[in-house]
Amino acid sequence: DFMNALDEVTPAFGVAKEELEQVIQNGIIHFDQVVDDILRSGQLFVDQVRTSTRTPLVSLLLHGPPGSGKTALAATMAQSSDFPFMKLVSPDDMVGFSESQKVAAISKTFADSYKSPLSVIVVDSVERLLDFTPIGPRFSNTVLQTLMVLFAKRPPKGRRLLIIATTSLRPILTDLGFSESFDSEIRVPPISKLPALQHVLEEVELMKDPRELKQTMQMLVQAGFGSQDDVNGLNIGIKKLLSIVEMARQEPENVGERLVTSLMGL
Amino acid sequence: DFMNALDEVTPAFGVAKEELEQVIQNGIIHFDQVVDDILRSGQLFVDQVRTSTRTPLVSLLLHGPPGSGKTALAATMAQSSDFPFMKLVSPDDMVGFSESQKVAAISKTFADSYKSPLSVIVVDSVERLLDFTPIGPRFSNTVLQTLMVLFAKRPPKGRRLLIIATTSLRPILTDLGFSESFDSEIRVPPISKLPALQHVLEEVELMKDPRELKQTMQMLVQAGFGSQDDVNGLNIGIKKLLSIVEMARQEPENVGERLVTSLMGL
Amino acid sequence: DFMNALDEVTPAFGVAKEELEQVIQNGIIHFDQVVDDILRSGQLFVDQVRTSTRTPLVSLLLHGPPGSGKTALAATMAQSSDFPFMKLVSPDDMVGFSESQKVAAISKTFADSYKSPLSVIVVDSVERLLDFTPIGPRFSNTVLQTLMVLFAKRPPKGRRLLIIATTSLRPILTDLGFSESFDSEIRVPPISKLPALQHVLEEVELMKDPRELKQTMQMLVQAGFGSQDDVNGLNIGIKKLLSIVEMARQEPENVGERLVTSLMGL
Amino acid sequence: DFMNALDEVTPAFGVAKEELEQVIQNGIIHFDQVVDDILRSGQLFVDQVRTSTRTPLVSLLLHGPPGSGKTALAATMAQSSDFPFMKLVSPDDMVGFSESQKVAAISKTFADSYKSPLSVIVVDSVERLLDFTPIGPRFSNTVLQTLMVLFAKRPPKGRRLLIIATTSLRPILTDLGFSESFDSEIRVPPISKLPALQHVLEEVELMKDPRELKQTMQMLVQAGFGSQDDVNGLNIGIKKLLSIVEMARQEPENVGERLVTSLMGL
Amino acid sequence: DFMNALDEVTPAFGVAKEELEQVIQNGIIHFDQVVDDILRSGQLFVDQVRTSTRTPLVSLLLHGPPGSGKTALAATMAQSSDFPFMKLVSPDDMVGFSESQKVAAISKTFADSYKSPLSVIVVDSVERLLDFTPIGPRFSNTVLQTLMVLFAKRPPKGRRLLIIATTSLRPILTDLGFSESFDSEIRVPPISKLPALQHVLEEVELMKDPRELKQTMQMLVQAGFGSQDDVNGLNIGIKKLLSIVEMARQEPENVGERLVTSLMGL
Amino acid sequence: DFMNALDEVTPAFGVAKEELEQVIQNGIIHFDQVVDDILRSGQLFVDQVRTSTRTPLVSLLLHGPPGSGKTALAATMAQSSDFPFMKLVSPDDMVGFSESQKVAAISKTFADSYKSPLSVIVVDSVERLLDFTPIGPRFSNTVLQTLMVLFAKRPPKGRRLLIIATTSLRPILTDLGFSESFDSEIRVPPISKLPALQHVLEEVELMKDPRELKQTMQMLVQAGFGSQDDVNGLNIGIKKLLSIVEMARQEPENVGERLVTSLMGL
Ligand SMILES: Nc1ncnc2c1ncn2[C@@H]1O[C@H](COP(=O)(O)OP(=O)(O)OP(=O)(O)O)[C@@H](O)[C@H]1O
Ligand SMILES: Nc1ncnc2c1ncn2[C@@H]1O[C@H](COP(=O)(O)OP(=O)(O)OP(=O)(O)O)[C@@H](O)[C@H]1O
Ligand SMILES: Nc1ncnc2c1ncn2[C@@H]1O[C@H](COP(=O)(O)OP(=O)(O)OP(=O)(O)O)[C@@H](O)[C@H]1O
Ligand SMILES: Nc1ncnc2c1ncn2[C@@H]1O[C@H](COP(=O)(O)OP(=O)(O)OP(=O)(O)O)[C@@H](O)[C@H]1O
Ligand SMILES: Nc1ncnc2c1ncn2[C@@H]1O[C@H](COP(=O)(O)OP(=O)(O)OP(=O)(O)O)[C@@H](O)[C@H]1O
Ligand SMILES: Nc1ncnc2c1ncn2[C@@H]1O[C@H](COP(=O)(O)OP(=O)(O)OP(=O)(O)O)[C@@H](O)[C@H]1O
Ligand SMILES: [Mg+2]
Ligand SMILES: [Mg+2]
Ligand SMILES: [Mg+2]
Ligand SMILES: [Mg+2]
Ligand SMILES: [Mg+2]
Ligand SMILES: [Mg+2]
Repeated sequence: DFMNALDEVTPAFGVAKEELEQVIQNGIIHFDQVVDDILRSGQLFVDQVRTSTRTPLVSLLLHGPPGSGKTALAATMAQSSDFPFMKLVSPDDMVGFSESQKVAAISKTFADSYKSPLSVIVVDSVERLLDFTPIGPRFSNTVLQTLMVLFAKRPPKGRRLLIIATTSLRPILTDLGFSESFDSEIRVPPISKLPALQHVLEEVELMKDPRELKQTMQMLVQAGFGSQDDVNGLNIGIKKLLSIVEMARQEPENVGERLVTSLMGL
Repeated sequence: DFMNALDEVTPAFGVAKEELEQVIQNGIIHFDQVVDDILRSGQLFVDQVRTSTRTPLVSLLLHGPPGSGKTALAATMAQSSDFPFMKLVSPDDMVGFSESQKVAAISKTFADSYKSPLSVIVVDSVERLLDFTPIGPRFSNTVLQTLMVLFAKRPPKGRRLLIIATTSLRPILTDLGFSESFDSEIRVPPISKLPALQHVLEEVELMKDPRELKQTMQMLVQAGFGSQDDVNGLNIGIKKLLSIVEMARQEPENVGERLVTSLMGL
Repeated sequence: DFMNALDEVTPAFGVAKEELEQVIQNGIIHFDQVVDDILRSGQLFVDQVRTSTRTPLVSLLLHGPPGSGKTALAATMAQSSDFPFMKLVSPDDMVGFSESQKVAAISKTFADSYKSPLSVIVVDSVERLLDFTPIGPRFSNTVLQTLMVLFAKRPPKGRRLLIIATTSLRPILTDLGFSESFDSEIRVPPISKLPALQHVLEEVELMKDPRELKQTMQMLVQAGFGSQDDVNGLNIGIKKLLSIVEMARQEPENVGERLVTSLMGL
Repeated sequence: DFMNALDEVTPAFGVAKEELEQVIQNGIIHFDQVVDDILRSGQLFVDQVRTSTRTPLVSLLLHGPPGSGKTALAATMAQSSDFPFMKLVSPDDMVGFSESQKVAAISKTFADSYKSPLSVIVVDSVERLLDFTPIGPRFSNTVLQTLMVLFAKRPPKGRRLLIIATTSLRPILTDLGFSESFDSEIRVPPISKLPALQHVLEEVELMKDPRELKQTMQMLVQAGFGSQDDVNGLNIGIKKLLSIVEMARQEPENVGERLVTSLMGL
Repeated sequence: DFMNALDEVTPAFGVAKEELEQVIQNGIIHFDQVVDDILRSGQLFVDQVRTSTRTPLVSLLLHGPPGSGKTALAATMAQSSDFPFMKLVSPDDMVGFSESQKVAAISKTFADSYKSPLSVIVVDSVERLLDFTPIGPRFSNTVLQTLMVLFAKRPPKGRRLLIIATTSLRPILTDLGFSESFDSEIRVPPISKLPALQHVLEEVELMKDPRELKQTMQMLVQAGFGSQDDVNGLNIGIKKLLSIVEMARQEPENVGERLVTSLMGL
Repeated sequence: DFMNALDEVTPAFGVAKEELEQVIQNGIIHFDQVVDDILRSGQLFVDQVRTSTRTPLVSLLLHGPPGSGKTALAATMAQSSDFPFMKLVSPDDMVGFSESQKVAAISKTFADSYKSPLSVIVVDSVERLLDFTPIGPRFSNTVLQTLMVLFAKRPPKGRRLLIIATTSLRPILTDLGFSESFDSEIRVPPISKLPALQHVLEEVELMKDPRELKQTMQMLVQAGFGSQDDVNGLNIGIKKLLSIVEMARQEPENVGERLVTSLMGL
């Protein structure tokens, strides 16, 4: 029956894997030790689900500022599990859905996962799934309650499930009483140190000339980005950094200055 | 006609028993005197319903922090009654239900129970049945009113019903005017003493070596978990404790440290 | 045509009488002078409707804390009228009704009553009919407006109607502007004196031995229940008292202690 | 075409007249000069509509505390006009109506009136038509807007319309911006002087013996009802007074005391 | 194609003209210089639309206290344009319309106007079109957004449109962010000077005898209406004044006193 | 397949281009350096989308006071890209749309764009698309969430998209949590310096005689418009300025005075 289950889930397998790959299009740059730590933690949770009979359900929350790389890291963890059922639940696929259509789509994914002996579901951008907006605040209580129940509902006997959710509004989840639904939380920090930034610049080959890079780094130090405090120091998500890098690339003659200006304008 | 009634309810009997069993998959660990006290209280209410003609309806509320074992204990009480009609009303079975579908499902269960001479209904996680969220706050008034009426409505002549509800948000029930619907309340506390914790660790055989266990307990004392005050002392639900235990098991070489770290990180 | 009217209403008569009887299953215990006063007042209103041509519509509100016996007393008053049309409007019969279904059911009852020369309608637990909850507060304005209009609408020529409503949330009715709909109000108090309590204990024969009863009463005096102030003194509805009595009965060996403990735990 | 119009409206005429009569079942007791003043004012507005071409639409608001006689006086004014179209718009006839059904019923009445050369519409208990409740506050904005537009909309050429509305919540109408819809307002006061009260008692023949009446009046003076200030003095609507009178009549032996007690209990 | 367009719009032309005429049934009394100023301003905007190619859309707001004559003046301006498409959008024609029916009716009118080379639309009583009420406040955001878009949407090439809106709640329009939709605003003041009042009285021939008029004017001066400050001085819309005049006419013997009393009672 | 894609999108191309042209009917007047700066920035973003593979999605927000020229500038940028898919999403085309119809129309446009290798979408007047009103505030959360998801959703492999949104309520977008959806923001300022104003007057040839222009400019200086502070100084959107110019043109004899008066009346 383990074999039957495997058969049943195989078709979904391929599709979802592509979905997961698509959100890591720009790859994972190992710009800091924390990147590796996060991925290793993910591995441990994957192992727990695979092996422990007492915890057939484990749920994990990746949280951090906008663009810090949560989606890409969650997808990477999920992919590395190689579980027979892997699925991405994303607001991107629910544009124009009514509340009940969202609930149906989400429950369908969970119901499908209960057919596989081992499953991983990435629930991306919880705040968008909830249609959250700070004015009011407004959100879909229907979707919220669905997630809270599904995140606590044990899979049927012999089935195991890892849930990896992401959010850039963790305090809101606490206000909503949703934080207690998670077995564990991992913070995905923004880039806050110049060496990490330099690592990224090298990786994406923004400057052809190493001297140009060096000059740029010096300009950044002068601009105060070397300072370690939160307010004045460097504080940028990898996603936004990659975007700024590409803008700077448009003016090849003064790439460095453009980059520094953009970082200062944030 | 008592016999007819028995016949009618028998089919439901088997199904529900399984449902009740499923929520006690990890069994009941008797880690503290309070566990036995709670179960004995439950027994008394079962007896009252069985014997007193003046109180054909008795309702009981099990409340306590998240993961303290409310659902497992309520199910254990219900099972031990061996009433011909036993049923679990759980949000897990109502994912994606509209308010009126919930109301229909709940009233159906109560209407069914009125056909059995003796019935017990576990109404699990009242806050989830109510779609409660603290922002707003929002909740389904329709479901709330239904529960309030059903919890006060006498079964027909000759029928008797025990209602066991659970919640981790007891103060909210008071705010909602729902507390007065219960004949009695029982608190299910978290684990707050080291001997209770040790009892659990022994039962689940986290450490193979008794010396390892002893060392871990000493580390916990040093970490301040021996203190008896609420803020710094130990304060963890059995459910979460079992989850942390399984995580710790993933790193066999330093299980104890991992456990202590996790407890400190709460 | 008086005879026709009588014929038309007869069928409803029998049914409703049973409904009224069912809510007085435990009878009326005359534990205090106030019980008789209330019932005599009810008789006067019944007489007024029967005899005065200027007031073909009289409405009465029974209010008091939860479980003080409002429903049983209202039903007793209605029954003693022996009017050809007697009906109980109760939330128990409207579980899962939408607002408009409630309104339809209520108006139907009033429309039916207009066919009988003499009618009495018990409108039980107004707060539940209104789906009232203090958070918000929320309630069905549709049902409220329906009640306000029906409670003020004169029956057709030659028809007379007595309305007896009950509530445990009288201040709310005032806030809602509903209080002015009543011609008169009667308060149903909780039991607050030890002799009344003793009267009940004797009536339900909780203790076999009069000495046991005497001892229990002394324990209650020592526990401060003899004091006459609202905060520390005795203050319990007859309904809850009967429930506590039955719980105490479960432990025959120490019925008295159990009773006192329960009363102190309120 | 004036004749045609008259023909068209005649059928409605009879029906409405009965409706108007029904709300004055207990007649008009001329207990005070103010009663005559109000009725004479009404006559002037009737005349204005009948004769002035510049004001084919006149709207009047009768306001005063609950039970002060607004409905009966409005109906009396309307009846005395003897206009070919006379109609009562009352919440009594709209129990269970949805907002749009109410709007349809109201607009229908106005549309019908536009066919008669001379019309009068009594819009009774505006606050009930609006489903107004002070908690929230809540009300039907749809009905409100309909009334505001209809109260300002000129009838077609050659048609004239008098609108008489009643309310016991005049300040609310101001808050709602509805007050400005009226050309004129008349206050219907409660009974606040003992001679007026005595006039009523005589008219309804509560006491057979004039000495009994005299004694009762003395008791009322002693009870402070002779004082002219609003807080302690007499302050009761004619409708409630008639109700209290009938209650008192139930105990023939001490009618006077009963009456005084009831008045003091308000 | 200009000719074609003209043909298409002609039928609507006649109808609308009648509608416009109806709201000026009592004519325009030139009681003050400001009346002429307003009408001349209107003429300038009509000319701008007719001649300037850069501004094919001009929108104008007439605002002032209730009854100051806004509707009559807006209709007069529109009529004097003699544009081939002239239309009155009025709440009077939308009684009982749902929000979407209102939106449909309004957009239809604008869509029709886009077929005429030159159009004028009077949007009367914006606050009533919006179902505005100050409690809440509540209003139809759907209608508001429709108006805001239509008031800013350029007619198709070669078409020109003048929009004249009226309101007695101009501050509300600002709160709603609606004020910025207008190219220009004109205030329609109430009558605040005695000569203007006298002009009206003469025009409507309230008094047959000039001496009676003179006496009345003196009484008004004595009553303080000659003062120029807003609080105590004269302050009345032409519409209400005409209504008071007609009431006064009902008592031919003391017309003057009646008028003064009415003005003081405001 | 690039060729196929091009074929598919061609038809939409022509239509949209016209739409874009229509909103620039009055052309772009280069009254200040900032106009050229804005247009050059736009060109850089167009280039980035065309060339960088790492950023297939770039989103830009043009914000500034009402009438400052945002729509015209956004349309100009889009047109100059000459991408095979160019589209204007405007509230003008959604009058009377329900929330879900809006969402459908918007998502359709984005879905269509995903078929073209290179696309630009102008999302005009975001606040109007959101049905935003400051009272409440109220807005369509459904539309907001749709925009937030679509503005962050990567086009499929090999497709690239530039989004240019406009708003006059930028602070609101921040409150709504919408600001973070943009890669970059550009402010479109009002005209605040007299030389810029003069440039416009010359361009539109308001005065035939240069001396008249000179005089007018002197009057403006005297009126304090030369001052550079925000409160008293000049501060007017190009759109409103063009409207005032046309009004002034109606009185050829004193165009200058009229213009100055209008500017002072703002
Ligand atoms: N170490 C890294 N961790 C995460 N993402 C990385 C890393 N290195 C490069 N990337 C790239 O950076 C981008 C991160 O974007 P991603 O969408 O994952 O961020 P996010 O935090 O989910 O953003 P949002 O808050 O908008 O949801 C991806 O394109 C990814 O390929
Ligand atoms: N003494 C005990 N009491 C309760 N549960 C126990 C006990 N010993 C072991 N368990 C196990 O601990 C778990 C308790 O989880 P349960 O779902 O009952 O907690 P809960 O309080 O209902 O949680 P939640 O607040 O999330 O609803 C179950 O798996 C149960 O088998
Ligand atoms: N004197 C009494 N008055 C009222 N009820 C009595 C009396 N004596 C005994 N009873 C019994 O007590 C119970 C009173 O319950 P009842 O439902 O009438 O209370 P209630 O005030 O309506 O409660 P709730 O507030 O929950 O609606 C009934 O079972 C009734 O038979
Ligand atoms: N002078 C009077 N004016 C008005 N009603 C009178 C008068 N004399 C006797 N009545 C009687 O008093 C009653 C007044 O009741 P009515 O319904 O008109 O009061 P109301 O102010 O409309 O009450 P509510 O505030 O409940 O609407 C009627 O039965 C009427 O026949
Ligand atoms: N100078 C005037 N200006 C406007 N209306 C006048 C004037 N002279 C006489 N009238 C008459 O006065 C009345 C003005 O009423 P109108 O409905 O236009 O006022 P309004 O300000 O629109 O009222 P509301 O605030 O109720 O909408 C009309 O009957 C009109 O014929
Ligand atoms: N330099 C300029 N920049 C922008 N628009 C200009 C410029 N010069 C002339 N115009 C004209 O000014 C008008 C600007 O109006 P536009 O609708 O673009 O303003 P907007 O800021 O979008 O207004 P709104 O805030 O109402 O949306 C257009 O008619 C345009 O042709
Ligand atoms: Mg993400
Ligand atoms: Mg539970
Ligand atoms: Mg009751
Ligand atoms: Mg009335
Ligand atoms: Mg008007
Ligand atoms: Mg714009």
